[in-house]
Amino acid sequence: MASSEIEQAVLLLSKLPALGQRSARRLLLHLLNKKETHFAPLLTALQHVYDSIQTCPICGNMDTISPCAICLDENRQHSVVCVVQDVADLWALERSGAFKGVYHVLGGLLSALDGVGPEELKILSLIEKIEKGNVQEVILALPSTVEGQTTAHYLSDRLAEQNVKVSALSRGVPVGGELDYLDDGTLQMALKSRREL
Amino acid sequence: MASSEIEQAVLLLSKLPALGQRSARRLLLHLLNKKETHFAPLLTALQHVYDSIQTCPICGNMDTISPCAICLDENRQHSVVCVVQDVADLWALERSGAFKGVYHVLGGLLSALDGVGPEELKILSLIEKIEKGNVQEVILALPSTVEGQTTAHYLSDRLAEQNVKVSALSRGVPVGGELDYLDDGTLQMALKSRREL
Repeated sequence: MASSEIEQAVLLLSKLPALGQRSARRLLLHLLNKKETHFAPLLTALQHVYDSIQTCPICGNMDTISPCAICLDENRQHSVVCVVQDVADLWALERSGAFKGVYHVLGGLLSALDGVGPEELKILSLIEKIEKGNVQEVILALPSTVEGQTTAHYLSDRLAEQNVKVSALSRGVPVGGELDYLDDGTLQMALKSRREL
Repeated sequence: MASSEIEQAVLLLSKLPALGQRSARRLLLHLLNKKETHFAPLLTALQHVYDSIQTCPICGNMDTISPCAICLDENRQHSVVCVVQDVADLWALERSGAFKGVYHVLGGLLSALDGVGPEELKILSLIEKIEKGNVQEVILALPSTVEGQTTAHYLSDRLAEQNVKVSALSRGVPVGGELDYLDDGTLQMALKSRREL
């Protein structure tokens, strides 16, 4: 290991999430050993994404086309809008394959501590979308944290005036979750919202 | 998540060591969120490494200059040659900062199972280097595995005819190693090669 160009690449790689100095070196070596079969296509793909990435003007997703592929897809239910905190959560829901509607990215959560008020979030554009009349249901897919639930409360208040069904993700025991390892809050919630069988 | 260009980038990222589908997505999103401050310099650095990487004709290291920065460094001891299995091990030793000589990359280890004989490794060029007369010590820094030790044995036999000191890395309890967690082989080795205090 030596020349500053390689050190520079390793340094930049090591600042990525999930990577450290050691794994960054291993990763770069792997790429150098598979220069034509892996390094070249990866560089091309990343450069292409870098050049063409843009934020969808309709939902706030990031994609190489605009509007994004989800908003353009005519096979999806455009009358069901899933509200998410950020693009990472949108991608997580897409990965699950469970949702066939469209999205609306808030761009954050209400937070008194961080000074994030309703104006900082994409709430007005959500309401405008609903007022246009094509939305039948809004699903609030927000995290089960204080900020997430505050934001969900605020949104359901604001949307109460609108002629639209508002729902939220269910909460309870996660799939594969051992009761023994769950926090008390989750257990209380799961007990309170128990389902009849 | 949707368009095939992004999926392609995620797929290629997820095949890197230490990354999976999930961390590849998180990594790409991180880059998209830091497009100018992280994504752009990383792409430039990787492209530069891709364009200029080459194998050092003297030692077998990979670097963006040729001969590599280590072989070109006049402050290093060119009379002490450290023999390593591959470039990854060379970089690991460099990271430790403990070695100030030069290297010789074998390009693998002898292995009857995998059909790797002495001709497949860079052994002849090592002997030629020694025969030129400027090498005083050869340090065998090979892994403590069956293949590694077979290769070390073979090399010390071949180098016995040469007027050169041959040494190997010491073996024993690693720094921070709890005896309780060490394998029996290491314990036996550490006991056998105990040092007088």
